[in-house]
Amino acid sequence: MAAPTIHHRTPEFEATVREVRAGLGAVFQTRQDVIVLAASGTGAMEASVVNTLSAGDVVIVVNGGKFGERWTKICRGYGVDVEEVVVAWGEAVDPAVVEAILKRRPETRAVLVQASETSTTVLHPVPELAGLTRERDTLLIVDGITAVGVTDMPMDRMGIDVLVSGSQKAFMLPPGLAFVAFSEKAWKASERATLPKFYFDLARERASQQKNTTAYTPAINLMFGLRKALERMLAEGLDAVFARHDRLARATRAGSAGLGLPLLAGTSPSPAATGVYLPPDVPGGDLQKYLRYGLGVEMAGGQDRLKGKILRIAHLGHAGPFDVVTAMAALEFGLSRFGVEAPLGRGVAAAQAVLVEDLPARPSA
Amino acid sequence: MAAPTIHHRTPEFEATVREVRAGLGAVFQTRQDVIVLAASGTGAMEASVVNTLSAGDVVIVVNGGKFGERWTKICRGYGVDVEEVVVAWGEAVDPAVVEAILKRRPETRAVLVQASETSTTVLHPVPELAGLTRERDTLLIVDGITAVGVTDMPMDRMGIDVLVSGSQKAFMLPPGLAFVAFSEKAWKASERATLPKFYFDLARERASQQKNTTAYTPAINLMFGLRKALERMLAEGLDAVFARHDRLARATRAGSAGLGLPLLAGTSPSPAATGVYLPPDVPGGDLQKYLRYGLGVEMAGGQDRLKGKILRIAHLGHAGPFDVVTAMAALEFGLSRFGVEAPLGRGVAAAQAVLVEDLPARPSA
Repeated sequence: MAAPTIHHRTPEFEATVREVRAGLGAVFQTRQDVIVLAASGTGAMEASVVNTLSAGDVVIVVNGGKFGERWTKICRGYGVDVEEVVVAWGEAVDPAVVEAILKRRPETRAVLVQASETSTTVLHPVPELAGLTRERDTLLIVDGITAVGVTDMPMDRMGIDVLVSGSQKAFMLPPGLAFVAFSEKAWKASERATLPKFYFDLARERASQQKNTTAYTPAINLMFGLRKALERMLAEGLDAVFARHDRLARATRAGSAGLGLPLLAGTSPSPAATGVYLPPDVPGGDLQKYLRYGLGVEMAGGQDRLKGKILRIAHLGHAGPFDVVTAMAALEFGLSRFGVEAPLGRGVAAAQAVLVEDLPARPSA
Repeated sequence: MAAPTIHHRTPEFEATVREVRAGLGAVFQTRQDVIVLAASGTGAMEASVVNTLSAGDVVIVVNGGKFGERWTKICRGYGVDVEEVVVAWGEAVDPAVVEAILKRRPETRAVLVQASETSTTVLHPVPELAGLTRERDTLLIVDGITAVGVTDMPMDRMGIDVLVSGSQKAFMLPPGLAFVAFSEKAWKASERATLPKFYFDLARERASQQKNTTAYTPAINLMFGLRKALERMLAEGLDAVFARHDRLARATRAGSAGLGLPLLAGTSPSPAATGVYLPPDVPGGDLQKYLRYGLGVEMAGGQDRLKGKILRIAHLGHAGPFDVVTAMAALEFGLSRFGVEAPLGRGVAAAQAVLVEDLPARPSA
């Protein structure tokens, strides 16, 4: 990314776009075009809405956290009629609830959901939701920002109609690029969608990107980074990438259990990040600052009603076993500093018991 | 920009946003907030439209090139009623034509124009247009993508209501950031504007950026670069920056005249780039490729009706006297290779005669 910025209307940059398109298609597991936007993930969420819907259309939004809430805000901002399925923070949506609304309102144009709801570290049941939309004239629009490249989300096979992601999570880059792919069904719906758009007009962007260029000036140096990131992910192999995330997530959950910290997402935890409840007498904000400034370890706190009560430990993208070990050790240090009895090493050991699954073979003598 | 990507909800990143905001205010010469978006310039153009207008509003678009055309496309895409002032490519708009429309249609909500129309290397008369909109209930919306930080565009003093720019021109960065500032009058207009928006909702973005954060994930590493770029621009001094661009532009025009190449923008040339007509028997596309691959010198060609007929020589941002010298020498080499009699050194010497104005003083013995 530190390479000189080249002009984007050149064969050299077209070669970058070509490689990026191929790599993104492999990671999204789709034969469709994966379109790259110079925007953050929210831009691609908005693009998903304005390219598939019209004012007055009925949609179902699964709102189980800050990002579910964002679907609602985007849709309502454009005059879309939202049926909200409010899910308790930390829980996954029950597909039967969505199904009941689909039966009651068969005119529903789309179901919008997070695959992984980052604010609550919950994994929603996308395959089950796809089972509901597949046979209907209803799209399944999935925010995969912390799911694509983390866990198996085979867009075409699973029947996802719109899949969104961004550069700064599994793709290991700085923020600034967003990705979105449409199924045939979604492209068809886009023909009748009348919501206004220009920068996020995906039909125009697709026409350009099929020629390995972009409609507007691309974020050139991030594209260089993306080419390299995709190369690494595909060299590791998607199955290995998913298995690594699963292992790191299980290790983090095991370590948290070892420390006696209850999981925020007990029943359907995300493989991208793990939220843990802190002991009630620990001020979460202060602990978070201590970890950041005292120990140099970054964990996210809770938002809104969870502020100060939880910590979220990320283990996606450029993450390996020693990141989990470090996170557990840092939690142990931090909790002991805040007067919580947390025997040093207990969380680490519990995490290690999972991580040991993947030790490399002993070199032969 | 190659520094590690830090979390954006931290005091460290807030400090970056604070510095960037102050620096952008200085370069835009405004007391208003200059809002940063993770998008390319077209995104900020769209933000200007959707935050100030409603469907059915009447606007005047100055269309004298590819980017003027883009204003029309954005506005019409949102159902805005566009009165287009079509200007011959290479010429600047006549303010009297705009004034006549303003008198005929006093309900006109905005005049949209490029300060510098990059596709034709023309500078439009923004101060005169501001004289027309200042006393009316009409906004002046200016695309300053190749003007802000290039030539004196004192937003507040000149009476510009909306001023747009982007990271990849005067700001010397890779693409991926767009900037937009609103006057009091524009913020007031935004209250009645009903066009839909979410990612580009500037009131929301302003509320966040006034707290030195952003509504959605920012393009973090580009922000690091922007902080440094602003530091450099302000250390050089805005007046010195403008004088440098003016000198480089005059040198390029003098050099082109020395080579016998007519200017595309004869009467109102931009200080950002200079378009020159090629001799009619020279295939412009081939010459451009020869310069790029044979000599390693990048010049832009013409678009649409100018394709193959012109070259555009940029001299903005990170550009100095030897860039102009190189451009002239490369043109001389290239033209001679394509069988045009262009005495080597003639364009260079003509450019040098301007550049000599700014030689540093002789070191004292």
